[in-house]
Amino acid sequence: RLNLAREQARRKVENTATELWYYINARMKELAAASGTGTLNNMVRGMQSDLQGYQTVMTDDFGALREAGGDGELQRKESLRLGNLVQRRLEYLQNPKDCQRAKYVLCDLQKGCGFGCQLHHVTYCLVVAYATQRTLVLHSKGWRYASKGWDSVFMPLSNTCTEVSGSTVHWGVSKSQMDAAKVIQLPIVDSLHPRPDFMPLAIPEDLAPRLNTFHGDPPVWWIGQMVRYLMRPNSHLQEEISSSKQRMGFKGPIVGVHIRRTDKVGVEAAFHGLDEYMQHVDAYFNQREHRESIPQRRVYLATDDPSVLADAKRRYSKYEFISDNGISRSAALGSRYTDSSLRGIILDIHFLANTDYLVCTFSSQVCRVAYELMQTYHGDASAYFRSLDDVFYYGGQNAHNLRAVEPHKAKTKDDLSFDVGDLLGIAGNHWNGFSKGTHRKTSKSGLFPSYKVVNDIVAVKMPTYPEVKEEEEDAEGERVGIAVDYGHR
Amino acid sequence: RLNLAREQARRKVENTATELWYYINARMKELAAASGTGTLNNMVRGMQSDLQGYQTVMTDDFGALREAGGDGELQRKESLRLGNLVQRRLEYLQNPKDCQRAKYVLCDLQKGCGFGCQLHHVTYCLVVAYATQRTLVLHSKGWRYASKGWDSVFMPLSNTCTEVSGSTVHWGVSKSQMDAAKVIQLPIVDSLHPRPDFMPLAIPEDLAPRLNTFHGDPPVWWIGQMVRYLMRPNSHLQEEISSSKQRMGFKGPIVGVHIRRTDKVGVEAAFHGLDEYMQHVDAYFNQREHRESIPQRRVYLATDDPSVLADAKRRYSKYEFISDNGISRSAALGSRYTDSSLRGIILDIHFLANTDYLVCTFSSQVCRVAYELMQTYHGDASAYFRSLDDVFYYGGQNAHNLRAVEPHKAKTKDDLSFDVGDLLGIAGNHWNGFSKGTHRKTSKSGLFPSYKVVNDIVAVKMPTYPEVKEEEEDAEGERVGIAVDYGHR
Ligand SMILES: Nc1nc2c(ncn2[C@@H]2O[C@H](COP(=O)(O)OP(=O)(O)O)[C@@H](O)[C@H]2O)c(=O)[nH]1
Ligand SMILES: Nc1nc2c(ncn2[C@@H]2O[C@H](COP(=O)(O)OP(=O)(O)O)[C@@H](O)[C@H]2O)c(=O)[nH]1
Repeated sequence: RLNLAREQARRKVENTATELWYYINARMKELAAASGTGTLNNMVRGMQSDLQGYQTVMTDDFGALREAGGDGELQRKESLRLGNLVQRRLEYLQNPKDCQRAKYVLCDLQKGCGFGCQLHHVTYCLVVAYATQRTLVLHSKGWRYASKGWDSVFMPLSNTCTEVSGSTVHWGVSKSQMDAAKVIQLPIVDSLHPRPDFMPLAIPEDLAPRLNTFHGDPPVWWIGQMVRYLMRPNSHLQEEISSSKQRMGFKGPIVGVHIRRTDKVGVEAAFHGLDEYMQHVDAYFNQREHRESIPQRRVYLATDDPSVLADAKRRYSKYEFISDNGISRSAALGSRYTDSSLRGIILDIHFLANTDYLVCTFSSQVCRVAYELMQTYHGDASAYFRSLDDVFYYGGQNAHNLRAVEPHKAKTKDDLSFDVGDLLGIAGNHWNGFSKGTHRKTSKSGLFPSYKVVNDIVAVKMPTYPEVKEEEEDAEGERVGIAVDYGHR
Repeated sequence: RLNLAREQARRKVENTATELWYYINARMKELAAASGTGTLNNMVRGMQSDLQGYQTVMTDDFGALREAGGDGELQRKESLRLGNLVQRRLEYLQNPKDCQRAKYVLCDLQKGCGFGCQLHHVTYCLVVAYATQRTLVLHSKGWRYASKGWDSVFMPLSNTCTEVSGSTVHWGVSKSQMDAAKVIQLPIVDSLHPRPDFMPLAIPEDLAPRLNTFHGDPPVWWIGQMVRYLMRPNSHLQEEISSSKQRMGFKGPIVGVHIRRTDKVGVEAAFHGLDEYMQHVDAYFNQREHRESIPQRRVYLATDDPSVLADAKRRYSKYEFISDNGISRSAALGSRYTDSSLRGIILDIHFLANTDYLVCTFSSQVCRVAYELMQTYHGDASAYFRSLDDVFYYGGQNAHNLRAVEPHKAKTKDDLSFDVGDLLGIAGNHWNGFSKGTHRKTSKSGLFPSYKVVNDIVAVKMPTYPEVKEEEEDAEGERVGIAVDYGHR
């Protein structure tokens, strides 16, 4: 069995190393730029090249330590077991034997945004359902992506109780009224008041000890399990996924790249050129090639900009790009809210989630959904990504805090000071060794070295579903309640 | 139980980190020196200070990982258990029931060198005794340090058979003659021909799996167990050790510093100033203070130069120096080979071995003996030292090889090229990220990055002493067959 203290200690030192390399690489680049062209510049360039060697070997050493003595296998098994348990609890919750006696939360799909955003809306509804032990009913007729609704692509959320009637209240009336009501209707997350403590990034208290042991970012795994349940494909979509996989030749080792353009750029996110993505893809494969031979570097490319693919193929001829340009074309704003565009974005998310590593902008919900779902395919994929902008977040989440484990004394006015134990709200990681945050006590904002903090994981009491038993010894890699698993790893 | 693969993987990455810090610190110092006094120099100095923070935390993280989940405790227990087993095997070997039927190796103490050198001579004899399953008899009357011989300070090597008679051959006659002989007389190690494969740095094959699991440098632990057996104090010396400990106020946390001067300097080793030693003592305590408060920094100072103590006290007033200047005076060449000087060097070695960390020159046998013995007091003290010159070696050892785990391509003519799997004889570690060695296939010598190699541990079949049973569950920290244990840790 994995040991909680040991796994946390292992991840702690690995995290210090990761941040060290961000720091060193950023600083050495600055030094190289500032050191002119003479001897000094040669020294700096020599160091950069030497340090690359240390980084590659150290990263590989940490990878070996993760796997050593069968620990990696245990981690994957435990992630699978616990994931299957959550799926069974959701099935139990969603399929009451007696629809008359069951209680419900009700959501609808009328949120005026894209698929990722809408899926996260339903995800939040499912979290509320789980935490209040009420069956989720989703009204999805007239959905902007598919007028026939949710079940036109996914498995129905329930096989037994799909409609509700009876006393209905809106979230936010008194606790006793909510408790008594047969149905609670949920608003979009932005209007949720009061905000329950079980909202993401909280994880269920009864699962926390196990989850904290095998996973580096438990909230993402937990959200991933919700997404996994929601996105179970119906048989038609299932076939489409399988045939697409065949047709495109999707197989590992493969990196997922999601390039979000069109309506997002300049409005909600900055433009990032293809090279910025590919630099991290290169780094990923270079690292992996240190340990194994990679006969063909593959990238699964998802984008709403159909011009990217040709450009990528032309400029990165070493790579095989697996991508469906038809999907990208259907993602254009003019055709976005159509049945075929819907199937396109679902396929893209599925394939992105099934890669070995993701390069994208976490400002996009598309990539965050893929990253969440990805956790359910690996033991711990929390480090299998590189975001060009934000750190992971869940729209409408409760405060995401970091806890200082080292003191920090600000040297400039841009810096933030803190003591061990202080809580900081995270504003972002600059991926150069420094993060930005807000001190919860003083409300000051500023930069600080990322290695001086750890994620503050919040575990909240939720129902424990004692009626649902954990499966006996799992059959080899068998996933319960979800039909697709490419299992290329 | 500790897992071999996991422990080795943990030590591998920790070693990569150690070498990385040697490299970075050396290179950043060069950059600082070369970067003048302007902006660039400020950048470099800023980096040096930031990097110190990363190093401290990463080193601490690795320490925490070593202890995590009870692994540190297991490591110490296992080291103790296996050490006690070796001691019992030696007792069994050294105390034959029937002296007539027993077989012997015979050594004498007439080697014309210092105590450390002579002890290592006896250590090699004991290794031969163990590996050939012959009882060691030591002729020590007229010893230059104490004319009454070995037993004037130590427990006798045997309680049953202390003299030998019968057919005696010298090492090196034919195998059948040696096998048949009652007594084999051993020369000094320099004249040992043929050289048996079980000589240090070899370890016994039957102990290797366990030893490789809990210890970072198994040959040193193994030699330490021989030294432990040999240096068991007799009751008189035992009292002297106890009363010295009392009188001097020896207690942890404490660093051992051995400063070898007089006849050694300029002949067999270079001069190293006090500051060079103290810089590493500072670094040790700074690191430890990151995790715990150290009310008083203590140094156990051993030296053959009586002037060092006053100098140290004057210049390092933050430290408490625990040292007996009378011992240093007796170590002068004029009084070195006397009873009281003998007790002095034994006390110094005992106290050095009982510190938490050693700073010294491994070119001196005094410090190497202390380091060997130190292993028997900790689970794994292989990293608890800093040598200002050599890496650890055993005088007269068989080839000490490193095995390349990364390829290296020489960039200059001073560099050595090699492929993964190649063996290199080690010539030294420059403690700046680079080691010097000789390629076993090409016989070329040169520098290479130390992180690209691992120690090549040689395990050799030796008798397994099945008559000696391993003890049942060990009583708390109980050591068998050795009377002194300061147990300050
Ligand atoms: N098929 C496909 N559609 C995309 C892609 N990127 C964006 N889209 C479309 O644009 C929508 C973006 O809205 P949303 O999912 O909320 O994500 P966000 O706006 O990027 O945060 C998606 O739901 C898709 O309909 C892509 O890579 N592939
Ligand atoms: N008491 C004492 N004696 C020392 C010290 N350093 C050297 N000596 C004396 O010098 C001898 C040095 O010979 P040896 O032990 O072979 O070590 P090496 O010459 O340093 O390799 C020791 O055995 C002692 O007699 C010291 O720190 N304390």
